[in-house]
Amino acid sequence: MTYLSLTLTLPSWIGEYIHETGTQFSSIEERMALVVELSRLNIQHKTGGPFGAAIFRADGLLVAPGVNLVASACCSMFHAEMVAIAMAQQVLQTFDLGNDLATHYELYASTEPCAMCLGAVPWSGVNALVCAAYDEDARAIGFDEGAKSADWVAELEQRGISVLRDVLRGNAVEVLQAYADGGGLVYNGRSAK
Amino acid sequence: MTYLSLTLTLPSWIGEYIHETGTQFSSIEERMALVVELSRLNIQHKTGGPFGAAIFRADGLLVAPGVNLVASACCSMFHAEMVAIAMAQQVLQTFDLGNDLATHYELYASTEPCAMCLGAVPWSGVNALVCAAYDEDARAIGFDEGAKSADWVAELEQRGISVLRDVLRGNAVEVLQAYADGGGLVYNGRSAK
Repeated sequence: MTYLSLTLTLPSWIGEYIHETGTQFSSIEERMALVVELSRLNIQHKTGGPFGAAIFRADGLLVAPGVNLVASACCSMFHAEMVAIAMAQQVLQTFDLGNDLATHYELYASTEPCAMCLGAVPWSGVNALVCAAYDEDARAIGFDEGAKSADWVAELEQRGISVLRDVLRGNAVEVLQAYADGGGLVYNGRSAK
Repeated sequence: MTYLSLTLTLPSWIGEYIHETGTQFSSIEERMALVVELSRLNIQHKTGGPFGAAIFRADGLLVAPGVNLVASACCSMFHAEMVAIAMAQQVLQTFDLGNDLATHYELYASTEPCAMCLGAVPWSGVNALVCAAYDEDARAIGFDEGAKSADWVAELEQRGISVLRDVLRGNAVEVLQAYADGGGLVYNGRSAK
């Protein structure tokens, strides 16, 4: 007997897009360009909010992409980063991407993670976090990023997770702004008063 | 064409157990007793770590239970609270449990949430968080709770989410201790040095 169940499936356009791009992305900028393009395509295909993410192996192999699927999947935790982490762990069949010490994995995010995703990063086992837009860029179009420590970068680095910010930030901000200009749904949970 | 996909299914013993208990839990203590029992049964059935959670409607109807499924589902985000939130949102087909202003939902957790789950609480739309064991009880047996603000209770309350702590704490701590004494797997991601 099964009880409650939930299936998370990446939209088919992602598979088609990755089929075109291939799965090898050599430079940091190429990896981030993919992630920002996923955020743009997620708006175009109306599958979610303007956020993309991916887990790459340190040599540039794409392990799993992610996009924001909160509204389409009826699940508040399906931010792009969470989707990418969950899919990468499925692909590699491990709950800890850090358990193979010889192979490093990196999380790329088109916008710096919210409080939830930030809390998820150490549990994922990644060695690095690379971000494009600043969290204030998301806040500027109305998205709540939650109660984040002002020292979040240092807190990750204390755990051996390197943080690189401001990679293709301008490109990511263009996508955020296009979403806002197009009247995209800005959902939030319970905001601070 | 589908691409990557992930299915999260609650263990069948939960369905069987809820079939016995029914879905109405009138007092706060009865609701927490269910959640602590789920944490205990999760060890007994070897389906995950010693953590249980559930979403209740304010009138005591169980909407969805959750248990820690990190190791069995190969997914670091499947803490008990996240599983309960995701399942409740599936049952109600909404990504925001707060969107029906006439109906309040409450998250019960056998241990206070880690940094990730804490960040997820406002996004879930619940009106209240009720906890048994303190986070230091989880830390005492080796689980990392992540970088949490010292003011996390006040930060949730500023968002209109009430927090009630120390409900059946002793019962929940017994389960944590039994897990530790039994040599249960204490997994952690990247810990602070």
